[in-house]
Amino acid sequence: MTLAAVAREAGVSLPTVSKVLNGRSDVSPATRDKVERLLEAHGYRRRTPGPPPAPLIEIVFHELESVWAMELIRGVENVAQRSGATVALTESGTRQAPGPEWIDGVLRRRPLGVLLVFSTVPEAVKRRLRSRAIPFVIVDPAGDPDPDVPSVGSANWAGGLAATRHLTDQGHERVAIITGPEDLMCSLARLDGYRSALAMAGLAPDPRLVRFGDFHVQGGYEHALDLLRRPDRPTAIFAGSDLQALGVLEAARVLGLSVPRELSVVGYDDVPPARWSSPPLTTVQQPLRRMAEEAARMLLRPADPRKAALRIELATHLVVRQSTAAPPTPD
Amino acid sequence: MTLAAVAREAGVSLPTVSKVLNGRSDVSPATRDKVERLLEAHGYRRRTPGPPPAPLIEIVFHELESVWAMELIRGVENVAQRSGATVALTESGTRQAPGPEWIDGVLRRRPLGVLLVFSTVPEAVKRRLRSRAIPFVIVDPAGDPDPDVPSVGSANWAGGLAATRHLTDQGHERVAIITGPEDLMCSLARLDGYRSALAMAGLAPDPRLVRFGDFHVQGGYEHALDLLRRPDRPTAIFAGSDLQALGVLEAARVLGLSVPRELSVVGYDDVPPARWSSPPLTTVQQPLRRMAEEAARMLLRPADPRKAALRIELATHLVVRQSTAAPPTPD
Repeated sequence: MTLAAVAREAGVSLPTVSKVLNGRSDVSPATRDKVERLLEAHGYRRRTPGPPPAPLIEIVFHELESVWAMELIRGVENVAQRSGATVALTESGTRQAPGPEWIDGVLRRRPLGVLLVFSTVPEAVKRRLRSRAIPFVIVDPAGDPDPDVPSVGSANWAGGLAATRHLTDQGHERVAIITGPEDLMCSLARLDGYRSALAMAGLAPDPRLVRFGDFHVQGGYEHALDLLRRPDRPTAIFAGSDLQALGVLEAARVLGLSVPRELSVVGYDDVPPARWSSPPLTTVQQPLRRMAEEAARMLLRPADPRKAALRIELATHLVVRQSTAAPPTPD
Repeated sequence: MTLAAVAREAGVSLPTVSKVLNGRSDVSPATRDKVERLLEAHGYRRRTPGPPPAPLIEIVFHELESVWAMELIRGVENVAQRSGATVALTESGTRQAPGPEWIDGVLRRRPLGVLLVFSTVPEAVKRRLRSRAIPFVIVDPAGDPDPDVPSVGSANWAGGLAATRHLTDQGHERVAIITGPEDLMCSLARLDGYRSALAMAGLAPDPRLVRFGDFHVQGGYEHALDLLRRPDRPTAIFAGSDLQALGVLEAARVLGLSVPRELSVVGYDDVPPARWSSPPLTTVQQPLRRMAEEAARMLLRPADPRKAALRIELATHLVVRQSTAAPPTPD
């Protein structure tokens, strides 16, 4: 069975059959359908090389586990879909940089560009991507990217400030913070925002109310248990991430403290679990989806390589829900 | 600047330079590094066609919003990574089937195979994928796939039974269910499991305690408010999904009911928010990650097309956490 015979039987030209095989869109649905049926009926399996591969935009994570990951994927997918590209997804390496096996793969895939969800990129990786003219952008919610690589982040200091001011504005004087890991710039920036808000409210910082967490639920739970068992316990906790805030809510439940009546809690990120918690969390929205969209757009319109790398920092803003209120009045 | 000149300057052969350019692994790291540096120093940008594209495994969703999505992606990524492939991700179509624009793209991408997270696949799509010998598998947590397409699901009836038996075993006699949408087979299967468990415990079903939800938090919240405001309110709710269970927890909080002391709640799915809730949810684990792994393996070892399509149904099992207890003793 030759393609010419399929064309004859379908009553179309050979180029039309070839268009159908190549997935071209300039064939009427009825014709496409007829040709497809005949190809299948005759057990046709293509052997000729196909059309050029469809364009990819690649996103690389060191762990897909993160609640961030889906928000970032959605942002890239939005831009990819509009530009006729497909999202390719890899998990590789450590929190710092993608693993060495990844670079071999990406050179073969030749994507339109790469979003790296990492803080730094090894020199060798940059060199190889540049020599193939594969543009790359760092999406770095942690906030400490290489200065010579284009990157997108968000305003961590301002976010820490807004979260803490919301609490001091309501009259809280004993406000604790569980920020992120000490080796991430975003943790330090949020902590500095917290300190500035306390200073603006005329409150002296209490170092016993400052904790470094790991951005996970369990860590938030343990720090909160410890903070809330103190005789001079805080009336509010700025939890540094939504997951840590969920851990704080569980610690409050276990200790029989009602949120927000006896304890106010502010999260950070505004990922979906913040809306689903009980009570729903007041939190700082980090525009993860928009960050990924901006990064994907930067890839599709690569900057002039002779100019300095672009750093975009998107604004964060407070979302007030039901986990915060004025502090309880002293008995 | 020619590649021959780069080879000369690096002190290697021209084929070695070409291997480096093509991302081949049979070059020593030191040589690769030297050649890469020279290529960059001389501003080399490749113009020749690259090596064949790296293999893709494609996964298509109608909405990435779902909490399922990340679990399924992780399963595919596990298998892809082991087999040297990359995950390509698309969002397209409706709950029933991918959109028409998707098929044109996938024929150009020519992935090793496609995981469709849909209940059905239009005949025209099946024909076109088959004629290009692109294998496909339906991953269908909803449980009503085409009989002629290989698919992976899980045991919904058994899951509904296990959730409800756990409650009747603890002595609950007024057990409500908020199952999923009425037009999904999985909702009906879980409801039938619930009914069988009640019958096994010698309890008559009360139709006023049966609700059809939408698998989202808000729907669970509204149904639970309504159920819990009844004078003869249930002492336990099987919530049909973890998100609906989170809505039930919020309804209990708003009404001042303590979980599990005054109300037991069982979820379904065991997605991460079930572990993060306050209290952590007793739930039925649907092995989403393993379902995606099985589906990806089916793609890589396509079945004999003359044999009947394979349907794999993985077991579900109850995970007991802190949202269930014996019913309160009557005053």
